Amino acid sequence: MAAEFKMTRRVQFAETDLAGVMHFANYFRIMEEVEHAFWRSVGHSIHFRDGDREVGWPRVNVGCEYFAPARFEDVLDLSLIVTELSTTKIRFQIEFARDGQVIARGRTTAVCCTIANASFTPVRIPDHLRAQLEELLTTA
Amino acid sequence: MAAEFKMTRRVQFAETDLAGVMHFANYFRIMEEVEHAFWRSVGHSIHFRDGDREVGWPRVNVGCEYFAPARFEDVLDLSLIVTELSTTKIRFQIEFARDGQVIARGRTTAVCCTIANASFTPVRIPDHLRAQLEELLTTA
Amino acid sequence: MAAEFKMTRRVQFAETDLAGVMHFANYFRIMEEVEHAFWRSVGHSIHFRDGDREVGWPRVNVGCEYFAPARFEDVLDLSLIVTELSTTKIRFQIEFARDGQVIARGRTTAVCCTIANASFTPVRIPDHLRAQLEELLTTA
Amino acid sequence: MAAEFKMTRRVQFAETDLAGVMHFANYFRIMEEVEHAFWRSVGHSIHFRDGDREVGWPRVNVGCEYFAPARFEDVLDLSLIVTELSTTKIRFQIEFARDGQVIARGRTTAVCCTIANASFTPVRIPDHLRAQLEELLTTA
Repeated sequence: MAAEFKMTRRVQFAETDLAGVMHFANYFRIMEEVEHAFWRSVGHSIHFRDGDREVGWPRVNVGCEYFAPARFEDVLDLSLIVTELSTTKIRFQIEFARDGQVIARGRTTAVCCTIANASFTPVRIPDHLRAQLEELLTTA
Repeated sequence: MAAEFKMTRRVQFAETDLAGVMHFANYFRIMEEVEHAFWRSVGHSIHFRDGDREVGWPRVNVGCEYFAPARFEDVLDLSLIVTELSTTKIRFQIEFARDGQVIARGRTTAVCCTIANASFTPVRIPDHLRAQLEELLTTA
Repeated sequence: MAAEFKMTRRVQFAETDLAGVMHFANYFRIMEEVEHAFWRSVGHSIHFRDGDREVGWPRVNVGCEYFAPARFEDVLDLSLIVTELSTTKIRFQIEFARDGQVIARGRTTAVCCTIANASFTPVRIPDHLRAQLEELLTTA
Repeated sequence: MAAEFKMTRRVQFAETDLAGVMHFANYFRIMEEVEHAFWRSVGHSIHFRDGDREVGWPRVNVGCEYFAPARFEDVLDLSLIVTELSTTKIRFQIEFARDGQVIARGRTTAVCCTIANASFTPVRIPDHLRAQLEELLTTA
């Protein structure tokens, strides 16, 4: 089961640290950028209204393995795969590559939630969105 | 095997996002702050010279589970445990708690490396540092 | 006219860049931390409710001069001065010092606003807050 | 005297804060991205070698005025103008616009420096680079 989404992203100066490489926490910001670009590519925003509810996807579990450092001005090839889709959750894997070499691999589990007053309540993924994701996963 | 280090840290405004909570990537920055405070507590800097070599601890694997959101101005209780120590690697677990409730749990695996020109070469943890860490782990 | 507030703050690893110094944009995050600590010191949060209104202080103008770089693990001495107080605005100057030497000087102009749906509407600084700030400024 | 460089940039989720808008410090990170993209557009990196020297452009003075908030997923139109060029310094103005409306205006003064051990020494802008910038400014 895989729906792949690809984009490129240049490492910015502010993302480096004194070791001369991209700071490890910034991979998570980039993973999120890829995820949001994926949502836009299927016609959604990560943060949307479903009727009168504000809906978002807070993360419950994330991780990253680092194989080689990314450096200032590197143009990274990013690819996102949907690895799991359940009633309320979606899992992504995001790979970071440079010149054909995978330099890092991250994963995210996000839960569909309504948001009110900085609190989250898990909800079923809206039907129209689930149908769209499933079709995407089937045809991929 | 556990050597525990504790500190508190307030969530800052710039660390929040539009969902009204601390952005998930910032937990990794805080984990690193705790780790570095731990190193200072045992008399080291994360980034140090061992003779004429520049030594640091790049991460090879990190992760975080989120149980409840942290919010602006929350004072978080952070506790770091060394969970593993090998020839070149050290593993930490860092818990985020608020009012006695664990709201997130992270982990980091870092490798002792020499750093030159933004490249890393794994090396044995220097003997004096290993001896100190082992004593800490034994007496903990 | 001056009410001075002081705190210290250590430069964190994630705040450095590949030039080996604290990235220039992070001074603004630290300025904000000092400003918020100042508000807490007088019993307020930067983001508060005044009756049923949500009130905050978006910035309209900020700046910083840099005299010498800050580096990883430096403990900076920060001092905030309220330099102006008008019907809706407050101006701060924040100095960054290390070992008695001023290494940067920033300034912020913030406007008291009600916040709704990510939009800001300027309002008079609430009377009780203004009275408190003026007393502070007079007795400083 | 003006050499204009334009690009667009989407506001990312991690750049927002709990007020629902882009955090004010992130404008400086974006200004820097525009500046670096400008340098690349004229064939340079912000951080380069001139013979055996490492050369960079630390900032000595920056500022920003904010007219209206930027929000998540806004696509901002960014335009950089070189406003001054002296023996060692370069000044930029960067405008942030959305749908034809200028929402923020920033400025940066950077000094050409050699960098060694996280310390900066001002130097004359290398002749070939100055010649290129001057031609750019004349023909703009």
